[in-house]
Amino acid sequence: MTNAGDARTRSGRRPGTPGTRQAILDAARARFAEVGFDKASIRSIAAAARVDPALVHHYFGTKQDLFVAVIALPVDPRLVLDAITAAPLDQLGEHLLRAVVTVWDSPGGNGAVAAFRGVIGGGDPALVRTFLLDIILKDVRRRVDSPRGSGGTRVALTASQMIGLLVARKILGIEPVASMSVDELVTHVAPTLQRYLTGELESDS
Amino acid sequence: MTNAGDARTRSGRRPGTPGTRQAILDAARARFAEVGFDKASIRSIAAAARVDPALVHHYFGTKQDLFVAVIALPVDPRLVLDAITAAPLDQLGEHLLRAVVTVWDSPGGNGAVAAFRGVIGGGDPALVRTFLLDIILKDVRRRVDSPRGSGGTRVALTASQMIGLLVARKILGIEPVASMSVDELVTHVAPTLQRYLTGELESDS
Repeated sequence: MTNAGDARTRSGRRPGTPGTRQAILDAARARFAEVGFDKASIRSIAAAARVDPALVHHYFGTKQDLFVAVIALPVDPRLVLDAITAAPLDQLGEHLLRAVVTVWDSPGGNGAVAAFRGVIGGGDPALVRTFLLDIILKDVRRRVDSPRGSGGTRVALTASQMIGLLVARKILGIEPVASMSVDELVTHVAPTLQRYLTGELESDS
Repeated sequence: MTNAGDARTRSGRRPGTPGTRQAILDAARARFAEVGFDKASIRSIAAAARVDPALVHHYFGTKQDLFVAVIALPVDPRLVLDAITAAPLDQLGEHLLRAVVTVWDSPGGNGAVAAFRGVIGGGDPALVRTFLLDIILKDVRRRVDSPRGSGGTRVALTASQMIGLLVARKILGIEPVASMSVDELVTHVAPTLQRYLTGELESDS
């Protein structure tokens, strides 16, 4: 890890000041919303905030850490990502569902739900979109891209069911979905996710 | 149809004045949110607004019309309800999906999406919940209650997929779901809805 002293020895750009952290967050939010997570480079964010890129890393760590800070996510998405990565393809629906619902239902989950709610209500949809597609579901899209080119459709459909489950369970409180155990949700909803991820999308029913 | 003059001949309660319409809307919003659509009587709403029940009917028509006014819905839900009622049980998923997506994509649909967005963002979830369960899906719940007692689970799961589709397509703009034709959505999503409505929920995949 570097410390703030390192950054101050560099170019004439703004060193760390009380407003620096917020300036980086503002610049990052704008870039992520504009071009998405993948295309928003730390360099371009640093330039927009008029600071050295090293200072961005110093304050926030990786680009993914910076994104988590931008959307004020109180839960580390790696908890979900690790569970998904470890899941065999034919059980991906169940593993994804268990990992995500466990996060929602955790102490930090309320904050994540509140952040989502704020975006739906009036925030920037591009931030949620890039979070879902470029961070949470990026590796999944690659793994389920069979036949080739179908990965995007598969993860978008998967996202639609997961988003609806989040809204029904955590925001609208639609029973019995709001009170179901994770096991019950898996019984009912994992087959939907598994079909979207690896099933025949054209004509089964 | 009655006219405002009729109501003025009745009890000592407040006759129609410029603030009456809003007072009825406010009272109705509170009652619907508190006890749901089914249990909120016109009589109790009128009492809370301190007007004659006839005046509520005069201003708003039926209780369903009043609810539509409360949530500022720019689309008549009967368009969806009629399509659902006419659908054979084994095609209910497809008919429901077609009817609802057609409304979302209609000129009035943007207003409906905006109303939904406002509720998710900070409004009263109870209003959306009672709209979905006590108006849109009430008849469906009765029809799909097989085995007996499963109807509530079936419509809640159905609602979760429809809500997620709404958010993905109309709010977050997740491609390719956002741009799919209704026919493509039917191909991909109707099997999910049909399984939730009439399929085996325990163990198929």
